[in-house]
Amino acid sequence: MGLNFNFSTATQILFGNGTVAKVPELLNTYGRKIMLVTGKNSERAKPLTDLLSSTSEIFRFGVEKEPSVEVIDEGVKLARKNHCEAIVGFGGGSVIDSAKAIAALTPNAGELLDYLEVIGKGKKLTEKPLPFIAIPTTAGTGAEASKNSVIYSAKHKVKVSLRSSLMFADVAVVDPELTLSMPSEITATTGMDALTHLLETFVSNQANPFIDNFGREGMQRVSRSLLKAYETGSNLEAREDMAYAALLGGMALANVKLGAVHGFAGPMGGMIPIPHGAVCARLLPAVMEANLKSAKSQNLKYIISKYDEVAQLLTGESNARSEEGVQWAQQMVEKLNIPLLSAFGLTPDDFPVLVEKAKKASSMKGNPVVLSDESLMLILEKSI
Amino acid sequence: MGLNFNFSTATQILFGNGTVAKVPELLNTYGRKIMLVTGKNSERAKPLTDLLSSTSEIFRFGVEKEPSVEVIDEGVKLARKNHCEAIVGFGGGSVIDSAKAIAALTPNAGELLDYLEVIGKGKKLTEKPLPFIAIPTTAGTGAEASKNSVIYSAKHKVKVSLRSSLMFADVAVVDPELTLSMPSEITATTGMDALTHLLETFVSNQANPFIDNFGREGMQRVSRSLLKAYETGSNLEAREDMAYAALLGGMALANVKLGAVHGFAGPMGGMIPIPHGAVCARLLPAVMEANLKSAKSQNLKYIISKYDEVAQLLTGESNARSEEGVQWAQQMVEKLNIPLLSAFGLTPDDFPVLVEKAKKASSMKGNPVVLSDESLMLILEKSI
Ligand SMILES: [Fe+2]
Ligand SMILES: [Fe+2]
Repeated sequence: MGLNFNFSTATQILFGNGTVAKVPELLNTYGRKIMLVTGKNSERAKPLTDLLSSTSEIFRFGVEKEPSVEVIDEGVKLARKNHCEAIVGFGGGSVIDSAKAIAALTPNAGELLDYLEVIGKGKKLTEKPLPFIAIPTTAGTGAEASKNSVIYSAKHKVKVSLRSSLMFADVAVVDPELTLSMPSEITATTGMDALTHLLETFVSNQANPFIDNFGREGMQRVSRSLLKAYETGSNLEAREDMAYAALLGGMALANVKLGAVHGFAGPMGGMIPIPHGAVCARLLPAVMEANLKSAKSQNLKYIISKYDEVAQLLTGESNARSEEGVQWAQQMVEKLNIPLLSAFGLTPDDFPVLVEKAKKASSMKGNPVVLSDESLMLILEKSI
Repeated sequence: MGLNFNFSTATQILFGNGTVAKVPELLNTYGRKIMLVTGKNSERAKPLTDLLSSTSEIFRFGVEKEPSVEVIDEGVKLARKNHCEAIVGFGGGSVIDSAKAIAALTPNAGELLDYLEVIGKGKKLTEKPLPFIAIPTTAGTGAEASKNSVIYSAKHKVKVSLRSSLMFADVAVVDPELTLSMPSEITATTGMDALTHLLETFVSNQANPFIDNFGREGMQRVSRSLLKAYETGSNLEAREDMAYAALLGGMALANVKLGAVHGFAGPMGGMIPIPHGAVCARLLPAVMEANLKSAKSQNLKYIISKYDEVAQLLTGESNARSEEGVQWAQQMVEKLNIPLLSAFGLTPDDFPVLVEKAKKASSMKGNPVVLSDESLMLILEKSI
């Protein structure tokens, strides 16, 4: 079979403390009318707004919670009306995903549903999106380096992706200092999301040696820094590690399919209001266990050795075996005080539907083994 | 100081045996009028030409030897006259660099000299280059992943770079099978060029943890496969490793400055007709030795530890120390039968000018230590 891979990422990545100061210069080449997408609380973006206001005309668009079909269409309308020349997303994954979708749709005729699969017409984007700068203020989704936006449809009760290789950010500005003020619960859940991206792509049936290096580097950083960032939010070195790990996870998931955790996460997020990172955190150890059990029963040596390496990366012990990786993940979820999924309203009644939906999810196709319905049910049972 | 890096690369990278078959599909999105830049012998490109001829109108442009100011201007004229919509470079580093420069200049008013530094007006490219697909048939320069073209001016007897972050390939198609027929001398010299990119960026004073992973992965591949590819050209696994290593080297050098080997290589290539890879091969061990000596005399622990790791990567011995890396490189150059530089006409009379020019070269700014004139002279003495 040989060495085989595809790779694309944000056109330019700037990583480092203080890099956000470079944004005005970056925007100069795009134009003066800028849409700035932020979270509901625009206070955090004030330093950036101040920086931009001398050179740009800013149209602020605040996003509450996760991007929905309606929110994106509203943003697109605003950008079109004001002839915005570039979109800046400054915030967590939902904000980045919103900004990414608005940048993509503004120059493409019609509305969001025209371009969504499953619930819409599934048209392809034909026009190049508006220039788009992604500035994450959390360390988790890696949305700054991925080519999709996860969008919620209340009408259809699902989360679907708008995805195109045209949607990579023109510049991802990853400034760890912006994550210093992230609350500890968000640090915990988004950090576990990042870990899940790194781990699922590393053991994915689409894994390749190029992307494996992103997984190795990222998992080592999570191992040494997630708990520190959670316990002491002001620990800049830990924040750097987590911002870097999240970026690496985004770069990985844009090029290699994830696995069963994300296979469940999409449908679950559509059915219940539940933070994506909490879903990942609570499902990850159980999925690792189920995958390992299946791999061992079939004597799939390559997959087992990958999980051995995961254990070594996470525990820092060069002789660690796969099971110790599972334990590490379980213990980390406890140390981070991430609630059981029942706390968000998940009940066993939801399981059969979830299993059916997860089996059809795109991410499930990256899982290293095919899990039986029984295994999938067991994973859910362990999460509540 | 913290973790700090910039990263850009080709918009899309396709790696794997047989990937060249995807080129017609890739070109579909760009248009039908294609300029195909190849080496003087167009026979090797015949399978690709056949693939393309059913869907595209092909304007072939053959490049002999390295790109010169005249050749690029001629290619640009041809592309403009025929309203070419995309440029494909299929060949070694010189061909890829030519195609890259033609793609860049065609939509930008004027001629090449307007845009060259030092010998020209140094204007910046303002228009986006034509879509550009790079298909390397050697494994060395990494030009498929870098943003510059090295261009020779006979009038000024120098090699200068046309460089712009707009110049990254839209697609780098790295198909190791294309390198199977590469002659052994070219395998040797281009392979040592790739190693030099990996090693110089790894010890560069601009090195960073993100790019270091490219160096580690690449040096391990070179270590296990360069001699095999040289001795048995048909060894596809070795060819894969070398094509991958060269790509990684190109990705690294596009983002981190090189060092003294490339500081010398530019001026030397301008003064004497000598293969770039042979220069790298013959200078590399001596530069490693000089850098190490300087680092040890100043007790620069970080640099010494980087060279220790180089030694470990190259020898495969986990306890190897820096000196063993130098020995490995020296021995590899001998095993690959790369001639002394005197064989190409370099004489001690050239040394003083070379030292002066090298000190001013852009690559020299990446060297981990500042080398004295005496050290620089000694490096040259060891190469002839
Ligand atoms: Fe995720
Ligand atoms: Fe080189």
